[in-house]
Amino acid sequence: MSFQALPGFRDFYPEEMAIRRHIEGAWHAAAKAAGFEEVDGPPLESLDLLRAKSGDAIVEELYAFTDKGDREVALRAELTPTVGRMIAARAQALRKPVKWYATPQLFRYQRQQRGRLREHIQWNVDIFGATEVGADAEVLSVALDALRRLGLTENDVKVRVSHRGVMAERVRTRLGEDAIESTLRAIDKGELSPAQAAELLVAFDVDAIPELDALHAACEDLGIDKYLEFDPRIVRGLAYYTGLVWEIFDRKEKLRAVAGGGRYDTLIERLSGPSMPALGFGMGDVVLGELLKALGKLPPGPPRIDVLVVPIGDEMLAPARQVVRRLRLAGERAEAPYAPMKVGKAFQAAESFGARRVVLVGPDEWREGKVKVKDLASREESVREVEKL
Amino acid sequence: MSFQALPGFRDFYPEEMAIRRHIEGAWHAAAKAAGFEEVDGPPLESLDLLRAKSGDAIVEELYAFTDKGDREVALRAELTPTVGRMIAARAQALRKPVKWYATPQLFRYQRQQRGRLREHIQWNVDIFGATEVGADAEVLSVALDALRRLGLTENDVKVRVSHRGVMAERVRTRLGEDAIESTLRAIDKGELSPAQAAELLVAFDVDAIPELDALHAACEDLGIDKYLEFDPRIVRGLAYYTGLVWEIFDRKEKLRAVAGGGRYDTLIERLSGPSMPALGFGMGDVVLGELLKALGKLPPGPPRIDVLVVPIGDEMLAPARQVVRRLRLAGERAEAPYAPMKVGKAFQAAESFGARRVVLVGPDEWREGKVKVKDLASREESVREVEKL
Repeated sequence: MSFQALPGFRDFYPEEMAIRRHIEGAWHAAAKAAGFEEVDGPPLESLDLLRAKSGDAIVEELYAFTDKGDREVALRAELTPTVGRMIAARAQALRKPVKWYATPQLFRYQRQQRGRLREHIQWNVDIFGATEVGADAEVLSVALDALRRLGLTENDVKVRVSHRGVMAERVRTRLGEDAIESTLRAIDKGELSPAQAAELLVAFDVDAIPELDALHAACEDLGIDKYLEFDPRIVRGLAYYTGLVWEIFDRKEKLRAVAGGGRYDTLIERLSGPSMPALGFGMGDVVLGELLKALGKLPPGPPRIDVLVVPIGDEMLAPARQVVRRLRLAGERAEAPYAPMKVGKAFQAAESFGARRVVLVGPDEWREGKVKVKDLASREESVREVEKL
Repeated sequence: MSFQALPGFRDFYPEEMAIRRHIEGAWHAAAKAAGFEEVDGPPLESLDLLRAKSGDAIVEELYAFTDKGDREVALRAELTPTVGRMIAARAQALRKPVKWYATPQLFRYQRQQRGRLREHIQWNVDIFGATEVGADAEVLSVALDALRRLGLTENDVKVRVSHRGVMAERVRTRLGEDAIESTLRAIDKGELSPAQAAELLVAFDVDAIPELDALHAACEDLGIDKYLEFDPRIVRGLAYYTGLVWEIFDRKEKLRAVAGGGRYDTLIERLSGPSMPALGFGMGDVVLGELLKALGKLPPGPPRIDVLVVPIGDEMLAPARQVVRRLRLAGERAEAPYAPMKVGKAFQAAESFGARRVVLVGPDEWREGKVKVKDLASREESVREVEKL
């Protein structure tokens, strides 16, 4: 019997882990550049919390179960309930606006399709306690800054923007209060009939939405206005969004959204906190990874070591360890094989590790406190004193 | 109704997250310095896999449940089953020795005590495919290197070492085959009667164990021999260890073990892989965090930003955003408030963020393409051209 990962879950071998860390590195850098502080919460939460935020639509897709203490619990499918709970608990003490980010792994039990896993890593960036449109522009700029750090510019991606609150009001006046949620969900999924779409969307006028103008102006200040496209079909699937909403797509629209966000000014209150404006976005690693791969923007994996230290014969194992110790203390990533290795094989290994140098520890040089150093790029070889390595 | 984290689970607010990242940073640095590659696997695994490795003792403490596809699954309580499964699946293709590390979050449903949570972050470092004692010394040196990077030296911690295989053999000859597992567990938990302990431990002679000598010599090469203490009470609780075993403790032995590891040469085979020697260790964030705190080795949190940009009046909001954009592109962590802020309050905020400079964007200077810059350490103020910021 052989064991496998559960369907929809990924094993991160070193190559996949390097890609994940490359993406996460850009996320951390962009968030920190804009003064966001990192947080995290439990992967497991009470089902009540998740239900309070997202309603039953998400609950159906949760990994939910009853724990040994008879609590109804579930793996997190979003971070926002957790972050909302954390904000609500310290709402008075925290300096506003609160600027937080996180990179949690999230879980959904859904039918599997290409690119649809049951887990993914998602970057969450949120601001609590800011009503100003400058905050909306800032979270968007942070999302785009991370993409820029990964090599994706306005030639590769665009932002489709709209205003869920205005659209909801429009649906209310045309179709009545009861039609709002189902109609917005149909818009989000692209399921409107042509007649409905024409009625609701065609005459939906960007100029009638002052927040969109203000967002555009703030984005100009931040140098990201060229990414923006007004698109009334963007309403975000989840019912808790209240204001400006946006999604980032690849320019060719071959993939699902790379990221999505907006305002959800009533959420904290719904999670038993005070009334507090809130906004933010999520960006997953799966679609983004596919896009980077399709555009040839994934860098080669980082080298595993800088220096391979090779003992020539059994007696040189201990000296090789001493050399390794010295190199590591000097800040180099270095290793030696645990058993003697043929020199030819050692050079092959060094190349495959991406090492820059090979240090050969042989008995003759060692007696004089020296080792042979070979630079793998220049192919130059020299005999060096161990003390001066 | 207000929501809370489940009992035994931690919320990581920015201060706690900074400590976690400080610890994890040392783990990453030490592993990479020694040529270990990072991996990760799913937090959720099939119950069969966890049972195959650890037996029923751990299964009782698992967060186990049946998923919507009728699979018996559980949250990981250790990473080793996952890593073993990944190794077994690619045993032929991977270059030996395989040197892997990971920093997963792990989960156990256990009765709560002080410092005993239901989740923790654990650094795992493993080598597969090396029989040599140099590999045992290397993983230990990596563990100690991380502690050194966190400010803990041989004055603060020690390594208690023994050999589970030799001890098991000793129990077999004195008490019989059937007594091995229960006796080793009793030794691990310190539950032996004085008579039993005297019989088994007192005459347990370090000189009779050649691997311990060899380990000591290799540790001398790596400069970590001063940490070592032979201690026959160290056998590791889990049945799959086969050879050298060790645990790291604070010198005063006030806390539980900071880390523990050893050889488990039969594990990969048990997970349906080929026969392959293996060894490694785990180091958790909880006891280590307590020790760092007790010794005053936790650094202050990192500054949130480098520069606070302050708009003087509503009209300067847009210019402030443009200044922020310029600073961020130059690699500085910078932010501006979304609404105008009184100058006194702005300086307070800048101090609390750990910022080094405040940039005041006022209408008079801005008209001339200039801003006021104040250095918070030297208290020097200057008027600078925006172009040259």
